[in-house]
Amino acid sequence: MKLKRLTAQCGVMDNGLKNQEGMNTMERYDIAVIGTGPAGLSAAITAVIRNKKVLLLGSRDLSEKLKKAHEIRNYLGFPAIRGEDLAAAFQEHIDRMGITITEKRITAIYAMGQYFALQAGEEMLEASAVILATGVVQGKPLPGENEFLGRGVSYCATCDAPLYRGRRTAVVGYSQKEEREAAFLSEVCSEVLYFPMYKEILSLPGSVRVVHEKVTGIEKLPEAMKILTEDGEYETDGVFVLREAIAPGQLVPGLQTEGAHVVVDLNMAASLPGVFACGDIAGMPYQYIKAAGQGNVAALSAVNFLDKQRT
Amino acid sequence: MKLKRLTAQCGVMDNGLKNQEGMNTMERYDIAVIGTGPAGLSAAITAVIRNKKVLLLGSRDLSEKLKKAHEIRNYLGFPAIRGEDLAAAFQEHIDRMGITITEKRITAIYAMGQYFALQAGEEMLEASAVILATGVVQGKPLPGENEFLGRGVSYCATCDAPLYRGRRTAVVGYSQKEEREAAFLSEVCSEVLYFPMYKEILSLPGSVRVVHEKVTGIEKLPEAMKILTEDGEYETDGVFVLREAIAPGQLVPGLQTEGAHVVVDLNMAASLPGVFACGDIAGMPYQYIKAAGQGNVAALSAVNFLDKQRT
Repeated sequence: MKLKRLTAQCGVMDNGLKNQEGMNTMERYDIAVIGTGPAGLSAAITAVIRNKKVLLLGSRDLSEKLKKAHEIRNYLGFPAIRGEDLAAAFQEHIDRMGITITEKRITAIYAMGQYFALQAGEEMLEASAVILATGVVQGKPLPGENEFLGRGVSYCATCDAPLYRGRRTAVVGYSQKEEREAAFLSEVCSEVLYFPMYKEILSLPGSVRVVHEKVTGIEKLPEAMKILTEDGEYETDGVFVLREAIAPGQLVPGLQTEGAHVVVDLNMAASLPGVFACGDIAGMPYQYIKAAGQGNVAALSAVNFLDKQRT
Repeated sequence: MKLKRLTAQCGVMDNGLKNQEGMNTMERYDIAVIGTGPAGLSAAITAVIRNKKVLLLGSRDLSEKLKKAHEIRNYLGFPAIRGEDLAAAFQEHIDRMGITITEKRITAIYAMGQYFALQAGEEMLEASAVILATGVVQGKPLPGENEFLGRGVSYCATCDAPLYRGRRTAVVGYSQKEEREAAFLSEVCSEVLYFPMYKEILSLPGSVRVVHEKVTGIEKLPEAMKILTEDGEYETDGVFVLREAIAPGQLVPGLQTEGAHVVVDLNMAASLPGVFACGDIAGMPYQYIKAAGQGNVAALSAVNFLDKQRT
């Protein structure tokens, strides 16, 4: 049995594999798509149109980040749409194509030569090609961050700056890269407080007020937000928490990564043949339309990969 | 008028440059976006959200290819939509953001160091960064076209007419729009032959001689050029090949290309700093959602480029 041979080669998977013994009817998908944000959904749609047998894995709630987005203005075709409504449009799209989401969390993906083994808890799944669209893992959230995301806390200055035109904002920045975002906000907002969660400020316009205090949490007041630091507290209208993504973990052993991102080429091919990545996990910028576009490309590249294997 | 002064001598770019010195009142855009398909529209939307001064150049009819698309099934968020309806959604998006389209055809883009000069007929426009979203040139070049470009073959009547004052020219025109160029040449040249590569002539002055023969190639004689057709051959001094889109390498001299495509990296940056490309011109696959995603990325990369220049 294929699976037994597999066990011998891969101690890590012993448990999952043993549970599967006797299950010789294992289904092998053409393409496994991991993630149900815009990148994963777009990839699944294109792969299904191309007649591939697709396993779409992720949350049936789609992207939490998307659903909490206040207003998205740069997804071409949907002027100024709430995240919730855009997610509903995505849901309708996959529903009308008969695409269903399998709610399993994949903890590891192993390249087996002719196919990939996907570990989903105790289960092992198989696919001939894999598309990673998991998004990036954000660091440990600040107290209050998750709770007030979309209700005073935002992850995206480009997306949400218009909501704070002429109002006060605060940026909790985890790297110098975020200073550009603060500078952009200062063009729009009446006040920008900047809390660097790192040592040295690189370059900020004078209009941004830097507060060198360690942020310990975020609270919501009836009419404003409050940032708590080790030394005091600050009132503002909107809080932007901007951090460098952390490494995505060893989801696919052997895959070339760069920080939080999978290294891809323009065809969204990763360093292992048959593995593709799209959306946030494939690199900045973190944007919905970019993710959807890359999902489409990843799917077509996966289709090409499969077609080539068959010839 | 400053523009007139400029164009009076802009046959060769050097002259144009000299004329620009001291012209500090010319409006300089932050970003010029060339093309009004999904890539260009998406780029314009994101650049405007990022508070950049954007010049969106192209057809107010948006993409003809898109409008003629029967049904599009993989633009995430619009299940099974007709091209016409998707184009209408795009139009509404830019309308609601107050983005207008400037209907000028750019025939050449020159990197001037701190900015780019865009030649639009008799006019010269300026932008600090350029996003190419022109789509790909349909059709192959004529035999001899590439070989003799700049040595008897030209893409721009406005630019090169002065070289043929009192001499013979021929125009290979691919659409009725080019008839205006032929009319202009007839004011300057001793003879203008016009080879329509389409069916019906709209309007040409009597001084232009229309030849209804399919052009098959261009040759160079010691002292003249020769146009070959299916039915004969014609001698002339200069050949103008006028099409909707120009091959990217010709549009931006010095730009690295690969076939019909501009070579880009994952940030949609082309080989010249400040030049970005997205959509079909940036490579396969030719897909609407991919184009829109790349437009977004190109715009954000252009914004980063501009921000870096300022620090």
